[in-house]
Amino acid sequence: MRAITILGATGSIGRRTLELVAQFPEEFRVAGLAARGSNLHLLAQQAQAHRPDAVAVLDTVAADRLARALPPPRPDVLVGVEGLATLASSVKADIVLSALVGGAGLVPTMAAIRAGRTVALANKEPLVMAGALMTEAARASGVKLLPVDSEHSAIFQCLNGAKPREVKRLVLTASGGPFRTWPREALDRVTVEQALRHPTWRMGDKITIDSATLMNKGLEIIEAHWLFQMPFDRVEVVVHPQSIVHSMVEFVDRSVLAQLGVPDMGIPILYALSFPDRLPCPAPALDLAEIGALTFEAPDTDRFPCLGLGRRAGMAGGAAPVALNAANEVAVAAFLAGQCGFMDIPRLIAAALEVHGSATVSDLEACLAIDAEVRRWAQAKVAALAAGAGPARGLGRTSA
Amino acid sequence: MRAITILGATGSIGRRTLELVAQFPEEFRVAGLAARGSNLHLLAQQAQAHRPDAVAVLDTVAADRLARALPPPRPDVLVGVEGLATLASSVKADIVLSALVGGAGLVPTMAAIRAGRTVALANKEPLVMAGALMTEAARASGVKLLPVDSEHSAIFQCLNGAKPREVKRLVLTASGGPFRTWPREALDRVTVEQALRHPTWRMGDKITIDSATLMNKGLEIIEAHWLFQMPFDRVEVVVHPQSIVHSMVEFVDRSVLAQLGVPDMGIPILYALSFPDRLPCPAPALDLAEIGALTFEAPDTDRFPCLGLGRRAGMAGGAAPVALNAANEVAVAAFLAGQCGFMDIPRLIAAALEVHGSATVSDLEACLAIDAEVRRWAQAKVAALAAGAGPARGLGRTSA
Repeated sequence: MRAITILGATGSIGRRTLELVAQFPEEFRVAGLAARGSNLHLLAQQAQAHRPDAVAVLDTVAADRLARALPPPRPDVLVGVEGLATLASSVKADIVLSALVGGAGLVPTMAAIRAGRTVALANKEPLVMAGALMTEAARASGVKLLPVDSEHSAIFQCLNGAKPREVKRLVLTASGGPFRTWPREALDRVTVEQALRHPTWRMGDKITIDSATLMNKGLEIIEAHWLFQMPFDRVEVVVHPQSIVHSMVEFVDRSVLAQLGVPDMGIPILYALSFPDRLPCPAPALDLAEIGALTFEAPDTDRFPCLGLGRRAGMAGGAAPVALNAANEVAVAAFLAGQCGFMDIPRLIAAALEVHGSATVSDLEACLAIDAEVRRWAQAKVAALAAGAGPARGLGRTSA
Repeated sequence: MRAITILGATGSIGRRTLELVAQFPEEFRVAGLAARGSNLHLLAQQAQAHRPDAVAVLDTVAADRLARALPPPRPDVLVGVEGLATLASSVKADIVLSALVGGAGLVPTMAAIRAGRTVALANKEPLVMAGALMTEAARASGVKLLPVDSEHSAIFQCLNGAKPREVKRLVLTASGGPFRTWPREALDRVTVEQALRHPTWRMGDKITIDSATLMNKGLEIIEAHWLFQMPFDRVEVVVHPQSIVHSMVEFVDRSVLAQLGVPDMGIPILYALSFPDRLPCPAPALDLAEIGALTFEAPDTDRFPCLGLGRRAGMAGGAAPVALNAANEVAVAAFLAGQCGFMDIPRLIAAALEVHGSATVSDLEACLAIDAEVRRWAQAKVAALAAGAGPARGLGRTSA
C-alpha cells in the first residue's frame, strides 16, 4: 500500500490519478491533496471521497471556504505556498505527485525532494526553472524523480537502467499540435478556441496552448536534459501527429527502443505510481493494424519558434530557462484572456530572454526572484500590448 | 575478449558476424568455424583470416579439400554432424552462434547447450523442431539462449528482464514479403525470381522464401513461444511492410515497448555477442522523419496459409512442428529447384501435418527420426508432383 500526496489534485492529471487510486484500493491510498483552489467544489468532493490526512490550497479565502465545506472528521487544511510545501514534506507519503500547473509547483516540489520523498513529476516547469537545483537536491536526499509526462515516461521505460555510455540520443515525439500544417501567415490569426483543440490529447488549457506553440516540446527538451542527465545536442524532437509513439531512445548500436500506447495519461501516471512494477491499467489496448500508419516529420522551428527558444534557453542555463518559463506562462495566460495574439507568445519569450536571460542562478531564492521579476516585466509588456499596439505588433519580430 | 564459434560461417549471418568480429578485435576472436561445405572457397578464406582453433564441415569430401586448401599452421578439421557437434561442444568458446540453415543446426546446437555454452540463436528451425528439449537442456545446463533473429532480439530488448506476470502479449512484425498485396489467384503463378525479391531484407534463399510464404513468421511464433515461455495465444503477428519496427511487447498496463532500427542484421547479431553490453554497431542511424510513415495491417492467413499452419503446429506440439519444418524445408528446396509451385509449399506442409503431425516426441532421437521420415515422405510427394501433376494440382487443397 503506497500513500500518495497529490499536488494539483483538481487538474487533469490529479483527477486521472484519483480515478486510478480508486481502481486500486489495495495498492494506493491518498495521504494529501493540494490544489490552487480554483475548483473548490471538486477538491472538497475529492477530500470526502479519499479521506486524506491533510489538504492544502494556495488561496487563503479558498482555504477558509474549504474548511467550512468539509464535514468532520475534517483533515488538516493548510494554506498558501508554505501550506503546500508543508503538505509535500511533512505529511507522510511514499510518493508525492507533482502536478500543479506552471512554476507554482517549484517550492512544494523542492520541499518534497528535500524531505526525501519520491517525486512523480507531471509538472515540468519546476525542472525547467531549477533543474540543476532540483536534481542536485534529489541526489543529496537520495530521492528518485519519476517522470509522468508521457514522453519522459516513455524514455524512462526505454532506458530501463541502461548504462549512460550506451545511450546515443533521446528522441522526443511531438504531435505538432493543431497548427502543424498551417502556413506561417495564418498563425497570426489563431483563435483561443482553435488553439485549445488539440488533435490527440485532452489536457489542461496551459499545456494545450504550449502544445500548439510547441513550447511544450521546448520545455520537454530541458526536462529530458535534467531527468536523464543528457547533453542538449543529444535530445532531439520528431513530429509524430498520431501521438502513439510517446518517445524513443537510440543506443550506441543503432538499436532504437520506443514506448507506444494509446494517448491516455493513465498509463504513465500508473507506471510512476507502481514503479518498478506494472499494474493492469484500465486503458484501451493499442491496435496498430487498426491505426494503420504512424507518420513522422522534422519539426519546423520557423513556424514554431518556441521550440528553438526552449532549446536555446536550456543550453544557456542560468536565468534563461527561468525567464523562458515565466514569460511563457504570462504570455499563455494573456493569449487565453484575449490580450495578445498567438505569435505574440514567442515574441514575448524571445524579448524576455534578451532582457532577463543572462543572470546566474545560485539558489532557489535567486530563481524565484528572477521568476517574479520576469513575470512583472512580461505583464507590463502584455498590458501595453493590450492597451495599444494589437496582437500582431508591439513586441517586434521573433527569431527562433 | 569473447571467443566465438560460428555454426554456419559462410551464410549471410555468418559473414556479417565475421565482419563484426573483424571490426571489434579487442572484443571478439573466432574459436571455431563450421559450415555445410557448399562454399569451401569462402570458408578457407575465413579460416585463414580469423585463425580459428578448429573448422568443421558437414560434407566429407569438402572436409578433405578444405584440409588441403589451408596452409599450415592448419586448424583441426572436423567432419560431419558429429564434427559440428564436437566443434560446438569441445572447442573452448564463450558463445556459439547457431546460424546454419534449417534442421541441420539441431544436433550441433544441442551439443553446445549440453556443454554449457551460451548460444546465440540465429537458426530458428532447431527450436521449432525441439523447443521443449532445447529449453529444458538449457535450463538443466544453466545456459542462456540469446536470440539473433531480428524479431526475437527486439522482444528480448523490450522485455529486458520484465517479470513474466507483467507481460500481456508479444507482437511479432512481418514485412508481409513480396506478395503482400497480391491477389490469391496470382500466388499460384509466383516465380522463384519473384519470391527471392524480398522488399526489405537481404538474406539467404531459404529464409527469403519462408518470408514470402509467411512460414518464417509461423516458425517465429513457435520460436517466440519457446524463447520467452509465452503461451501461443499471447504471441501475435502484425504486418509492417517497412521492417523498421522489429517487434513489440505489450505489458499489462497497456504500455507497449518496440525495438526499431534500419533492417541490418548487424544490430541483433552484435547485441547477442555483446550482451548485456552494447557496442557501437557500424549500421546506419534510423531517421524516422526521412522514412515518413510506418504502416501496419492484419496478416491474411487465407492468402498465406503457412502462417496459420505454423501457429497450429506449434500449439499441437509433439511431432507437428517437426513435420511442419521438415515438409517446409523439402517444399522450399523443391520450389527453388523449379519442382513445385509456390502454393504447393503450404499444401505439402498441410498434408505432412495430417499424416505425420500427431506422434509424441520424447527425446532428440525420436525428433530426428520423425524429421527424417517426413523428409523422405515429402521428397516422394515432390517427386510425384514433378513427374506428373504439375504445381497447381496433385497435393489437393490447402486450408489454413
